[in-house]
Amino acid sequence: MLTYCIRKRLFVSSRVNSNISPLLELLQFYKHFSKSSDGGGGGGRSDPTSGMIQLFQRRFFIPPEDRHALSLLKGRTCAYGPLGVDLKRNMLEQWWSSVVRSRPQVFGISTLHGVGDDGAGEVEDLFKQTDLTKEQLGVRVCELLRQRKPFRTSLLQGALAQYIPSLELMNRKLPFGLAETGLCYQPEDDCSDAIGCSAEVTEASLVWFCSPRTSSQWLDYWTRQRLQWWRKFALGPSDFNVCDVQDDELIDGASRGAKVLYKFPWGTETLETLWMLGDADLLKGHLGNRDKLQCRDGKKVVVPHVLSLSANMDRGALAVLLNSLQDIQKVDSKQRLHQRTVLKLHPTLAPVKVALDMGKGSTSELRQVCEGLLHQLLEVGISAWPGYMDTMQSSMDKLHTKYDEMGVLFTLMVGENTLENGLLLIRNRDTTIRETMHISEIREFILKHISKAENI
Amino acid sequence: MLTYCIRKRLFVSSRVNSNISPLLELLQFYKHFSKSSDGGGGGGRSDPTSGMIQLFQRRFFIPPEDRHALSLLKGRTCAYGPLGVDLKRNMLEQWWSSVVRSRPQVFGISTLHGVGDDGAGEVEDLFKQTDLTKEQLGVRVCELLRQRKPFRTSLLQGALAQYIPSLELMNRKLPFGLAETGLCYQPEDDCSDAIGCSAEVTEASLVWFCSPRTSSQWLDYWTRQRLQWWRKFALGPSDFNVCDVQDDELIDGASRGAKVLYKFPWGTETLETLWMLGDADLLKGHLGNRDKLQCRDGKKVVVPHVLSLSANMDRGALAVLLNSLQDIQKVDSKQRLHQRTVLKLHPTLAPVKVALDMGKGSTSELRQVCEGLLHQLLEVGISAWPGYMDTMQSSMDKLHTKYDEMGVLFTLMVGENTLENGLLLIRNRDTTIRETMHISEIREFILKHISKAENI
Repeated sequence: MLTYCIRKRLFVSSRVNSNISPLLELLQFYKHFSKSSDGGGGGGRSDPTSGMIQLFQRRFFIPPEDRHALSLLKGRTCAYGPLGVDLKRNMLEQWWSSVVRSRPQVFGISTLHGVGDDGAGEVEDLFKQTDLTKEQLGVRVCELLRQRKPFRTSLLQGALAQYIPSLELMNRKLPFGLAETGLCYQPEDDCSDAIGCSAEVTEASLVWFCSPRTSSQWLDYWTRQRLQWWRKFALGPSDFNVCDVQDDELIDGASRGAKVLYKFPWGTETLETLWMLGDADLLKGHLGNRDKLQCRDGKKVVVPHVLSLSANMDRGALAVLLNSLQDIQKVDSKQRLHQRTVLKLHPTLAPVKVALDMGKGSTSELRQVCEGLLHQLLEVGISAWPGYMDTMQSSMDKLHTKYDEMGVLFTLMVGENTLENGLLLIRNRDTTIRETMHISEIREFILKHISKAENI
Repeated sequence: MLTYCIRKRLFVSSRVNSNISPLLELLQFYKHFSKSSDGGGGGGRSDPTSGMIQLFQRRFFIPPEDRHALSLLKGRTCAYGPLGVDLKRNMLEQWWSSVVRSRPQVFGISTLHGVGDDGAGEVEDLFKQTDLTKEQLGVRVCELLRQRKPFRTSLLQGALAQYIPSLELMNRKLPFGLAETGLCYQPEDDCSDAIGCSAEVTEASLVWFCSPRTSSQWLDYWTRQRLQWWRKFALGPSDFNVCDVQDDELIDGASRGAKVLYKFPWGTETLETLWMLGDADLLKGHLGNRDKLQCRDGKKVVVPHVLSLSANMDRGALAVLLNSLQDIQKVDSKQRLHQRTVLKLHPTLAPVKVALDMGKGSTSELRQVCEGLLHQLLEVGISAWPGYMDTMQSSMDKLHTKYDEMGVLFTLMVGENTLENGLLLIRNRDTTIRETMHISEIREFILKHISKAENI
């Protein structure tokens, strides 16, 4: 019999608290792991990340092309594979549920991506400058094109533009919030197209309007809330932290700021920023017309102050993935060491909740049972992996390795037994315990497991 | 006592079956209704649309600015208001659930929006043409800029690029599909920025890979499926139809095509297109390398054929909104005619399931009951409208008019009674029947109502 002896979090780096985005190192990692044939877990300091990224590629979180891995490592949107899509969907869904759906005073909005400017006007102006030679013009036009942003760079401006239409909704009562999730364009200076890195980031944004006297308390409230949210899904919550933004790092118009940070193996990076922006942006956007902007704060009438919360959900997805990886070592009865890697994604975030496989026996009958059960699971929204469709025979060990790396919560094994008495084997990813359960109880059991995890 | 005598669908136009996108008329509508002070329902042929759009603006589906209304009328993404956001979210969610989640052989993907080209290369080439004068250059550069698409124009190319990485996932077994929802850039020639119309469209796309011998049957299958899906949510299902694409309308590479159409008040427009594309796109994208592309179709090995399904979810949202509007006339006991407009959105699509209001009585206690109930509802994902927070007193009639126009399924009224015995009034949007129910039964009752509608 196997016994567990050591459980440790994978790859905790000794290089934490560095706030500098370690771009060059990432690129080195990247070059390194794209050449390395080592499957991961081994020696050098940069190998662990390489191994982890390969695992995410192998298990359909991101496509195999290197540029997608690079984008994700740099906290940008990549072309996600099927499991990555579902993980990010689940994260955005949880964010929406926590920030919008459970709060009557927060409303979802959706604004346009385009900034409505094709740059032709600026180019026309350039051509009107008669003192420029053709060569100078060429240089200036191309410069202009390269600086142009094809779409919005943040969700804040869109929310501010929706402030006035939202006042009626709220009867001009503070506080209230406008939330949106979506794509923003954020090129980095050193992230050129030449190396194929995306300039797209999926942001989740809340713009919170409150009375000036409470804005500082609200910043504290939201900072706590957001940290709690990130930690809720973590296997290692202590890797998620918050810090105040230093005065010299404040953006224009902000009087205070906070950040939610994650300790990546290569250093600490920002997942989310919270800014206390005052009323300047609102006033500027409405030509200083205070009357139109005013809201009720109890019996007083005020122009609200603005808090802006913005999370990078791509970097967040990477943090959640890395944080969930666990290296588990077991020693069997003959003192042999076995190692397995498990992606212990939180039950609500795991893209695949159940894998459905069949043992030996009368294939067509077992397949029918599997198909019936699969549709029962899908019907109630339990995402299930139809492993039984795979005609390549693989050993149970290989199957479990695969599903553990995919973060699958439960593996169901339909066998000859099931045809006789309806019983099947259900294996738990986290405990590796196998239980026998009646096929009619599976759905309820899994739904309960997930909802219990959700409400902690 | 009131009795219903006439129920009719609102504004069914006599001008159907026109396939031409009635742009000029729309613009006339638009000019008309932006000036019109008529609240809707009255006389002229263009008034009904104007009245309906004003209702959607008044009830927070779209913002009050005219350009958003114009975008939506033209089947483009607009800046949705809170209720519009939730309606579209719910539609996309239902699409995902019907196409991806309930089908083990369909996988969600997510590809980049950007096309990775800032146009600078083309401009540089222009400047290299020494025979062009500065003026000619200026004209050509600006032309180029105006033609440039800032991001992808369809989701098909992204899915084709994910074909090879998906093969492993499917063990090279046909058929399978790759699905994605997201923004595409689709300017119309006559939809210039000058009138503020958006060039963004939210598409829901399925790319289906199947054996050549079955592709025609699959096109028929998916056409039926998609029509069924649209009709599932309709109050007037017969306004949704399908037709084959005529030979002279086929896009490049398509050998057959079909469309899902909706009869708008101003004529018929396309909500969704389905193309049978063959293998040309796949072969072109992989330099004719058939070996890499091959899949198993039973015992044969083939290069799959491609079906591409693409729905415009913005035009779809408008269709669903217009289709759900119902004009109901009642005659009371004194033979007086009462008219009300109800937005009978399908229970799964309705953005607000429950409105929560309080009657007269001890305000602070009633408010506490409302707050408790609100959180109970939100907890299980029932979106609830906190009407009790509104301090402006309005009559019950006005409240019901408002909630009916918002498509709210149930209105709950907490009163003095509730404090004594836990009973409250629940009013059904569709039947207008008011029932007394115990507060502890509300949640279950509403969840059952929604799930019943979902499974029809």
